[in-house]
Amino acid sequence: MSETDKRLAELGIELPQPPVSSPLAEYVTVKRKGDLLFLSGVWPSRNGSPWIKGRMVSDLKHETGYEAARIAGLNALSLIREALGSLDEVDEMLKVVGYIASDDDFYDQHMILNGAAHLFRDVFGDRGSHVCTPVGVNVLPFGVPVMLDIVVAVKRKG
Amino acid sequence: MSETDKRLAELGIELPQPPVSSPLAEYVTVKRKGDLLFLSGVWPSRNGSPWIKGRMVSDLKHETGYEAARIAGLNALSLIREALGSLDEVDEMLKVVGYIASDDDFYDQHMILNGAAHLFRDVFGDRGSHVCTPVGVNVLPFGVPVMLDIVVAVKRKG
Amino acid sequence: MSETDKRLAELGIELPQPPVSSPLAEYVTVKRKGDLLFLSGVWPSRNGSPWIKGRMVSDLKHETGYEAARIAGLNALSLIREALGSLDEVDEMLKVVGYIASDDDFYDQHMILNGAAHLFRDVFGDRGSHVCTPVGVNVLPFGVPVMLDIVVAVKRKG
Repeated sequence: MSETDKRLAELGIELPQPPVSSPLAEYVTVKRKGDLLFLSGVWPSRNGSPWIKGRMVSDLKHETGYEAARIAGLNALSLIREALGSLDEVDEMLKVVGYIASDDDFYDQHMILNGAAHLFRDVFGDRGSHVCTPVGVNVLPFGVPVMLDIVVAVKRKG
Repeated sequence: MSETDKRLAELGIELPQPPVSSPLAEYVTVKRKGDLLFLSGVWPSRNGSPWIKGRMVSDLKHETGYEAARIAGLNALSLIREALGSLDEVDEMLKVVGYIASDDDFYDQHMILNGAAHLFRDVFGDRGSHVCTPVGVNVLPFGVPVMLDIVVAVKRKG
Repeated sequence: MSETDKRLAELGIELPQPPVSSPLAEYVTVKRKGDLLFLSGVWPSRNGSPWIKGRMVSDLKHETGYEAARIAGLNALSLIREALGSLDEVDEMLKVVGYIASDDDFYDQHMILNGAAHLFRDVFGDRGSHVCTPVGVNVLPFGVPVMLDIVVAVKRKG
């Protein structure tokens, strides 16, 4: 068991199955180039379907958006573990661009993204720290509230 | 003639002239750093003007959005060929963030982006595969329906 | 005094204090990986608060949006100087994705971003050139009109 898997167990976190590419779209879930791992947009899916749909905050409250970001983050961790063999290979979470489906007067996108950011911090400690660009948008694929574009720095070159 | 140009000819694809920077904005169309090639946002332009304008799907049907993404993809290929001398130098298409001008209740951004993704697969085979983040937005420059932010992995370091 | 600081003085530009992470969100302002420096989204803040709020162009005119992008750019320069010790270490500004809070019928996002792009050109000359993806969105955190996602190429590996 890897050190990071031990940490996950301590936290009582069981990662979901890694999300697979949609049969409706042509892309792969991860790409490695040198010491960077690029992820396709991860969203709050459960078994390939939206965990929840809606926009902040007419449809969904802050805490639901936060939980949606956390579930997207769990999907990211599962993809990363599958791609690298072990989460111990993560050097840093490096970069997150977070798109939040938002009403025209919703201004707390950065707080919703904490759902993923707190997860990464809890799992990785300092290695979970990353730069972040929070963005509001009117709509996201499948009607989900959160889409994360993540780049991970990897310890060893691929 | 490069292998990829032969493949383009087989497919009956003639690439457009590479788009040039708008005289109204200060940026360059491509930047190379090490083995990565970064492109400025490509959109469905023909000779510098929008091929089509509008939002999905009140203004434009699915198939028109798909074609718009394909035209943006052709512009990308033309820029990449100009920058690298030959499309054979493409190692992988690596990463696409695709912004789609969308009605508030349009949820199929990933399917629109297939217009570019299928082009890359047809031209490059496995090297055309990439990670993708599909995002809906209320509006894009010039009123176009698609904007692609593309990073290409290059075989040789620049 | 660095060459770039001399240039800033010639231009009569005094950089603001580097923005700090919001206490409400979990992220860091910069991350360096190899010869790339990744910035968290910079926006038109003054001492941590929005310099201005609103959307283009029902709330804010073109010239105000341009100035907002310039102020975001000044924040970026301040962060970069802090991270690298000197702006002379900037090899190229490399990449900007610029999100502009926009009415549904505002199409000039690329022109607003000139506020940052002209600043980078004035300060760095050719090293300020970069690829750019301009994107309209319905809303941004704190209600600001501009958010810039910037990647800088650095002369020496970190």
